[in-house]
Amino acid sequence: MPDYRLHCMPESGNSYKVALMLALCDADWEPAFVDYLGGATRDPSWRTEVSAMGEVPVLEQGGQRFSQSGAILTRLAESLGRFGGRDEEERYQILRWLLFDNHKFTSYFATHRFMNCLTPSAPDPAVMAFLRGRIDACFGIVEAHLANTPFVVGSEPTIADISMMGYLFFPRQETGYDLEADYPNIAAWRDRIRALDGWNGPYELMPGPRGQQYSWD
Amino acid sequence: MPDYRLHCMPESGNSYKVALMLALCDADWEPAFVDYLGGATRDPSWRTEVSAMGEVPVLEQGGQRFSQSGAILTRLAESLGRFGGRDEEERYQILRWLLFDNHKFTSYFATHRFMNCLTPSAPDPAVMAFLRGRIDACFGIVEAHLANTPFVVGSEPTIADISMMGYLFFPRQETGYDLEADYPNIAAWRDRIRALDGWNGPYELMPGPRGQQYSWD
Repeated sequence: MPDYRLHCMPESGNSYKVALMLALCDADWEPAFVDYLGGATRDPSWRTEVSAMGEVPVLEQGGQRFSQSGAILTRLAESLGRFGGRDEEERYQILRWLLFDNHKFTSYFATHRFMNCLTPSAPDPAVMAFLRGRIDACFGIVEAHLANTPFVVGSEPTIADISMMGYLFFPRQETGYDLEADYPNIAAWRDRIRALDGWNGPYELMPGPRGQQYSWD
Repeated sequence: MPDYRLHCMPESGNSYKVALMLALCDADWEPAFVDYLGGATRDPSWRTEVSAMGEVPVLEQGGQRFSQSGAILTRLAESLGRFGGRDEEERYQILRWLLFDNHKFTSYFATHRFMNCLTPSAPDPAVMAFLRGRIDACFGIVEAHLANTPFVVGSEPTIADISMMGYLFFPRQETGYDLEADYPNIAAWRDRIRALDGWNGPYELMPGPRGQQYSWD
């Protein structure tokens, strides 16, 4: 058995955050498919034995299980000595952006994509407009921040960038967003992460039975 | 000047998280009113000089400024030696719940309250129904968790509880939720926090020109 087993789903960008970290660190890991869309994490046994929060990803290592992508990334950065920032000030800034990512940057974009392409019924237009307003507000903050820095904290990539990449590599047919056109600084930042050694996309790192619905272009 | 100055607003539960921490630690601090509702944090000078994320609270200490309530709470727990958990395992769990709080528990409840009582126009019913669905899902997770533990991590209160209290002490006329009726474990947990030495409510800890609109009962 490899060092790490990641319970995940290819459609889950929160799973991808951890898969990408493991890939960039060249860790010894394997993905284990969880049928989140099919209700696996709502099962009482999953809630009791794996995660009371009913979420993926869950990272298994040495018989222990860890959940919440931002907490997993922080733990991996410490134990693997990669992407964790260089000093106390950078670690503070990383935590700040991890929280901002969970509160706003990933949250609204992920929910918008879920309603756009992963629910059987058509989403309510008012809810989609509400989410787009929230997305545009927080993406605008990141777009402005990236005018002055190649990565969100300091001059090198950190787990803050890796976390914020969660949903940015899904094709635009899924997300409903054309980042090159609307957020060029965010698109260029994404390209800098894509150029890192070991990078791969969510559907490549986390194979699943449904495969990739849309191609990138 | 006191040790800490908290740039905050009484209507902001994210500000209250930090105010409550400072009060429970009996720290030497003072609130400084920021007119967030009046647009102060959207001003370019606030974005440049105080917080690019355009948020309150901001904690000022020794000439430095810190933003993001979850990061501020983590830093205060370390420097003051209070509410930070007893070991690595508890610190992992605290981070996990801080992220869950920012992603879901505070986020949807705060937005629902904002639309319920702090915006001039009537909120869209579809958006409010969307938010209530999200709130009920994550409040259900916390309600079940609290059936087995007095505080969210371990047997003593931590910054995870303090963070999650952010919006729970606002009156039900503001939040639109009757926690005693719908989430009795959450209401009892809130009572345990209210009983701690130094506790006070948001409108008491952070005076502002508008005062409290509603009484508790």
